[in-house]
Amino acid sequence: MKYESTRSFIYQQQQPPPPPYLLSDQSQIKTIQYFQHSSHFSHSTPTTMSAEASSAVRVIGLWPSPFVIRVLIALKLKGVEYEFVEEQVGKKSELLLRSNPVHKKIPVLLHHGKPISESLVIVQYVDEAWSSSAAPAILPADPYTRAVHRFWAQYIDDKFPPAIRTLKGSDDGDKEQAAGQLSAALQLLEAAFVELSQGKSYFGGDGVGYLDIALVSHVGWVRAVEKIAGVALLDEAKVPNLAAWAGRLCAHAAVADAIPDADKFVEFSVKYGSFSKPINSGAK
Amino acid sequence: MKYESTRSFIYQQQQPPPPPYLLSDQSQIKTIQYFQHSSHFSHSTPTTMSAEASSAVRVIGLWPSPFVIRVLIALKLKGVEYEFVEEQVGKKSELLLRSNPVHKKIPVLLHHGKPISESLVIVQYVDEAWSSSAAPAILPADPYTRAVHRFWAQYIDDKFPPAIRTLKGSDDGDKEQAAGQLSAALQLLEAAFVELSQGKSYFGGDGVGYLDIALVSHVGWVRAVEKIAGVALLDEAKVPNLAAWAGRLCAHAAVADAIPDADKFVEFSVKYGSFSKPINSGAK
Repeated sequence: MKYESTRSFIYQQQQPPPPPYLLSDQSQIKTIQYFQHSSHFSHSTPTTMSAEASSAVRVIGLWPSPFVIRVLIALKLKGVEYEFVEEQVGKKSELLLRSNPVHKKIPVLLHHGKPISESLVIVQYVDEAWSSSAAPAILPADPYTRAVHRFWAQYIDDKFPPAIRTLKGSDDGDKEQAAGQLSAALQLLEAAFVELSQGKSYFGGDGVGYLDIALVSHVGWVRAVEKIAGVALLDEAKVPNLAAWAGRLCAHAAVADAIPDADKFVEFSVKYGSFSKPINSGAK
Repeated sequence: MKYESTRSFIYQQQQPPPPPYLLSDQSQIKTIQYFQHSSHFSHSTPTTMSAEASSAVRVIGLWPSPFVIRVLIALKLKGVEYEFVEEQVGKKSELLLRSNPVHKKIPVLLHHGKPISESLVIVQYVDEAWSSSAAPAILPADPYTRAVHRFWAQYIDDKFPPAIRTLKGSDDGDKEQAAGQLSAALQLLEAAFVELSQGKSYFGGDGVGYLDIALVSHVGWVRAVEKIAGVALLDEAKVPNLAAWAGRLCAHAAVADAIPDADKFVEFSVKYGSFSKPINSGAK
């Protein structure tokens, strides 16, 4: 299996992108404006649904992106059917450019054609838009615990991506230092896990929570860079609780399909050298 | 008036900092664990309240920090009484170090001694912890509109701080380029304002919302760097809606006290040269 999700769309009706301030792509994709749990929506202009917007929920992404992985896990936890619209590596689709004109980055969630960008914003949206789903809430109920989850999620996004890029060779930088930073972050998260899980399976307690999603999304690449750079990070001897948590969560029904084996990430890293330069290679 | 808030605390019972993974400072400050709107709280260990935690709500900060300003506005909007615990410039207090051991940064909100860090996390916490307050909600009710507010708030924190640091001279960098980046960001926000406000006063419509807080917190420094660097940014000719919005919001009862005149920010910048190097000066 080369890609986790293989379905892709071909967009025939390519049009010039809208002014870059338009977060919404409603000018491009005519959709039925229907929000399951919205009492009001100021942007709505009910129109007919086109072929482009035939799926209620679509995710624009690439399987190895930790940020995309988050969105898929959140949707699976909530039992929301979605269509995966796969981007090509190194080539941004017209749909992506007009759905996220500000950052031009994956993931984008399209809900009845309305785009939402930034992975943690999307996870919160999924939790809130499908709040009456039979599935448990992703964010904890208690305001303080929510704040603690949000704090660590932001911490993870500050620390993990730059260190992982350095370790897989797609960014220049001191690999030893990056491994040290990642190990230090994992140590803090090991302690946070003990405190938050209270002896249960996840950061969210008995259920998979916001912080579980924020962190597990990086586990594929953490395990890959362990192989690529020959370092031990998510290691039983160093972070026993987190290592056990990762094993448990990666086997969870909502997560297993979204995070393939580390070897797949390594393969991706080697194959797309220009996007993630392999170690011990001068190739860019 | 040199500082917006002058009350400060002297902490006598200085103890060694806790392990850095402890987000909570409950091991240091014994408090009554009481959460007005929490049905459960896994960290709670009810104990007696010490002199240190005599105020239910305290904010550790410095008045010119846009991130601190956010917290004050949110508390004022919710009508929450708080105590401002002022840090000294360039010297982190023991209370700050043990309340935010991970980042060691202001602001920190202490609610009955329990610390919350990261300004946008705090604003959401304030909205959620005082959700039954008579004051309107800060986050919009509709999930999609919430996502749009969160998207732009994150955008603001990506774009504004580095450009402002360059323009006031505390970071090296091309000032012209920084002014261009800030102008481009303001243009996008001008359009977002028109879309979100729907002809009303604020991004939040009739009431001050999450995105209003996220953006207005930077207005003091934007106006200050206009003077320091001689550039027009929040300018009627360029961003008429946003310029009018800024004037309106800065006169709002919940905001006026938190954001002094631009001259105060300029003064601060000149006075604390080592923290915000003035333009046309070799001094560091």
